[in-house]
Amino acid sequence: MFEFLLSKQFVVVLGPAGSGKTTLVGSYGRWLESRGVKVGYVNLDPGADYLPYKPDFDIRKYIRVTDVMKKYNLGPNGAFIKSADLMLELGDQIYRELVRIPSDYVLVDTPGQMELFVFRENGPELLGILKRIGFPVAIVVFDPLLAKKPSDLVALKLMATVIQLRLDVDSIPILNKADVEISDEVARSLEEELVLMEALSREAGVRADLAQSLVQVMDDYRQATRLVRVSALSGSGFDELYDIIHEVYCNCGDLT
Amino acid sequence: MFEFLLSKQFVVVLGPAGSGKTTLVGSYGRWLESRGVKVGYVNLDPGADYLPYKPDFDIRKYIRVTDVMKKYNLGPNGAFIKSADLMLELGDQIYRELVRIPSDYVLVDTPGQMELFVFRENGPELLGILKRIGFPVAIVVFDPLLAKKPSDLVALKLMATVIQLRLDVDSIPILNKADVEISDEVARSLEEELVLMEALSREAGVRADLAQSLVQVMDDYRQATRLVRVSALSGSGFDELYDIIHEVYCNCGDLT
Repeated sequence: MFEFLLSKQFVVVLGPAGSGKTTLVGSYGRWLESRGVKVGYVNLDPGADYLPYKPDFDIRKYIRVTDVMKKYNLGPNGAFIKSADLMLELGDQIYRELVRIPSDYVLVDTPGQMELFVFRENGPELLGILKRIGFPVAIVVFDPLLAKKPSDLVALKLMATVIQLRLDVDSIPILNKADVEISDEVARSLEEELVLMEALSREAGVRADLAQSLVQVMDDYRQATRLVRVSALSGSGFDELYDIIHEVYCNCGDLT
Repeated sequence: MFEFLLSKQFVVVLGPAGSGKTTLVGSYGRWLESRGVKVGYVNLDPGADYLPYKPDFDIRKYIRVTDVMKKYNLGPNGAFIKSADLMLELGDQIYRELVRIPSDYVLVDTPGQMELFVFRENGPELLGILKRIGFPVAIVVFDPLLAKKPSDLVALKLMATVIQLRLDVDSIPILNKADVEISDEVARSLEEELVLMEALSREAGVRADLAQSLVQVMDDYRQATRLVRVSALSGSGFDELYDIIHEVYCNCGDLT
């Protein structure tokens, strides 16, 4: 296991607010550890309250959203943006501390609000730092409440592609909270692309042909890997998640 | 002007944190008013500090992020999520107040963090309300700092498509802050798709063929309208923005 490691592997966990990133980092980390992997943990969320893991690097040592609100006399919106931008000034410090983490497999927790990482400069900058140290791969965590209709599945896969383009990193979309029920139609659309294509054409309101064409393109470029369902609480699906991440690393290896 | 109005038109202004949504709502509204349009204003951002317009409906009458932090003893991350979910309970109230706005052209300002609207349930729910009252169109505002490389342009257009699928509404991506300089390559890629296609193939790191194929699909479905550049401060580009919004409304009209 892990004989393909040449340098640090970073699994960067992204996802919209409330998708369960932090819980997943904690439970996936414990799952890996129980299988003998020495795991490192990085918290990049300056707004985090509680972490279910012991971080080797914690951005809150330098930046905390609540402190930023007070210090700069900002409302919560402004404080989040300011915090994201303050991270940019810490690049060298972050690099030095990440290099020293004594693990080859490092889970990276990101800001609660995904857009403050993906749609500002600190996200691409941070990925640049990770690439100097090793191989980053992103997993993008979604709540199954976001998968109510078949076109939602297309939206989630597209979102993972947006992240791939912005951060220049392979991204794997997953559905967290596997205990939350999804409709039969969505469940079957997850399993079978033909079912998804058919379901899309039946969906009212959406431009079915646009959604279908986008699915086809993502498929052609192996973007539309099956949306894995995991549960950060029970650990279900972690085997499959591990395999997919492994596969992406191996492909990266082929390319270098 | 506006002879095509049959019922209320809603221009829903979305965009990542810090893109300048609120300023744009204020200045685009004043621009419309100076041309004789009676404009209504809706604020749906429970985290807003200051509004440069007088809202006909203001969600902060019911929900304020800072109050939610205190009342539920939550950190800023949790308070934003809770606030988004509290909006869901206000659906009927919002409907009743929006119907009463004495204007046929209504600008709708959305939560500072776009993902709290697009990737939770309150966004689709709110769009459902707007559709019961009139015709919504979304404009998606981006900061030109997000357009550093050609593949960023693809990411922004894709993000607008994600919003279209999630909210089931036509979406128009625009670049705000026209005074911020962008590179020659990006500027020419904005104007000419052939330049974009070529620039993508030169870009290191990104899978050029994936980005190119996505551009082609979005183009085929008229998704990839030229990214208009506007300035919320100077009002430059508002003519073009107005025309594009008008065009989308007219197309909607054709379909009904």
